[in-house]
Amino acid sequence: MTNIILNKLVIIGVGLIGGSFALAVRKAGLVKHIIGLGRSKENLQRAIKLGILDEFTTDYSLALKNADLILLAVPVGQIEKIFSQIAPYLESKTIITDAGSTKQDVIASARVFLPNHFKNFVPAHPIAGAEQSGSNAANTDLFQDKALILTPLDETNTDALECVKNIWQGCGARVSQINAYRHDEILSAVSHLPHLLAATLMNHIVSTSTADSLDDLLHFAGSGFRDFTRIAGSSPEMWRDICLANRELLLKQIDTYQEELARIRRIIENHDEAALVKAFSDARAIRKKWLTNKS
Amino acid sequence: MTNIILNKLVIIGVGLIGGSFALAVRKAGLVKHIIGLGRSKENLQRAIKLGILDEFTTDYSLALKNADLILLAVPVGQIEKIFSQIAPYLESKTIITDAGSTKQDVIASARVFLPNHFKNFVPAHPIAGAEQSGSNAANTDLFQDKALILTPLDETNTDALECVKNIWQGCGARVSQINAYRHDEILSAVSHLPHLLAATLMNHIVSTSTADSLDDLLHFAGSGFRDFTRIAGSSPEMWRDICLANRELLLKQIDTYQEELARIRRIIENHDEAALVKAFSDARAIRKKWLTNKS
Repeated sequence: MTNIILNKLVIIGVGLIGGSFALAVRKAGLVKHIIGLGRSKENLQRAIKLGILDEFTTDYSLALKNADLILLAVPVGQIEKIFSQIAPYLESKTIITDAGSTKQDVIASARVFLPNHFKNFVPAHPIAGAEQSGSNAANTDLFQDKALILTPLDETNTDALECVKNIWQGCGARVSQINAYRHDEILSAVSHLPHLLAATLMNHIVSTSTADSLDDLLHFAGSGFRDFTRIAGSSPEMWRDICLANRELLLKQIDTYQEELARIRRIIENHDEAALVKAFSDARAIRKKWLTNKS
Repeated sequence: MTNIILNKLVIIGVGLIGGSFALAVRKAGLVKHIIGLGRSKENLQRAIKLGILDEFTTDYSLALKNADLILLAVPVGQIEKIFSQIAPYLESKTIITDAGSTKQDVIASARVFLPNHFKNFVPAHPIAGAEQSGSNAANTDLFQDKALILTPLDETNTDALECVKNIWQGCGARVSQINAYRHDEILSAVSHLPHLLAATLMNHIVSTSTADSLDDLLHFAGSGFRDFTRIAGSSPEMWRDICLANRELLLKQIDTYQEELARIRRIIENHDEAALVKAFSDARAIRKKWLTNKS
């Protein structure tokens, strides 16, 4: 299985993730033909010009005929609908994978809507992204040295799992396997909560300002503010889907974060210099440790 | 006043800000001699090697003799002590300015500890920074096209104000004048609160993890997390001072932020798709507008 070549790869949703996956698989020499499907014909036409796709279609029966691998790279809110649309055309050899930011809900949908192909479904999540979206944001090296999480189940076919794993490794990703609950828990802490906090800061600033005073605020906001709020620049629909798909764990994260924020608020209110330095030192130390381990 | 040349510039605190100021003023040809003071002899020696200082001393009487301009570039918690140390040696022509992150408290200290020179004190704050500190982090272009806020008072001598303004413009900064309360209010929203939120996220992640699960979390944290928490990497002592100096306004910011976070929490809990998309779209739109105006 290590030198697997895909005769036909189907990308559903040719945006930043789907497009970058196509480019990376092609660069690695792991595919012969790539066909794309998506909502915007303009975007698909551009994907052909950019060398991402060999062809595109709106016809699932044509697209899925003889497919080796299908990647669903759409916001998690659309996955259910697409599962139900592709189900009638799936062949027994076809492997299905996704790039959804949450995994428990995607797996639950696959159980319902891909009953006959559930064992061929390999749930996956590449930890890579950017502010941009659409096929023109696609980039061959997006997944290079980035984490790719697989959350297979007991039922998952071993060959299907190996195939998806090898393809992602071929794209340069560092592949890990964890269970879906733990995936969603981890991502709620290090991705979903920070996104919510950044968006909330922007809205907080607006809600506490008049139009004039808002201009002042933004005029004096510096590079710290820019970096802190960068993630608030990404797709609202994608983030709506993620927050709702991972609702229970995210609500828990918000609650414990609010407690931690209330704790530091009390420290400031009590003018507790030592506790304040400790809080900032702890935060810096853990971040430094993280950056050291990353590099 | 527009072609003012400083015969003698005194930098108290030769770190990122003080060192970069010295380099920029020198590059602009606006100074003949720069003398530095600070807590670490090693840091001051390095500053001479790096061409930041012409000399350094620990003797205030020597340092301040014939000084045209003194810049205090130390954490705001140390400014009061330094005002009281320099007060006996100030000459009538000497202008004093600072680079403190808060302005009301620094002005209040100057009133008490520089009673005879208060009119020659020009409160200032450059909106520039970096994760690094110390003279080896100094950089000639740190203030290029960055905002510099002056918060003069009715008593402030017009010539002193013009001098500080011209020197900062010579360093490439875009100089604005606002009142000290408004400065502290703006910075509490766009700088102090985000810093607190980023540090709180790091501490939240630690407090909700075991050692093993923390390693997992950090392993899967991506570039969004990295940028969001960048400001949590800066000096704990500096941030302790800022939070305490701007305590009242910061507590207000935390309270209204908590309300905004509770609002988005309710939206998620109620599964309100439309309100959630609106919240994320609003956040993205205001950020986009900000980036457009910045460039």
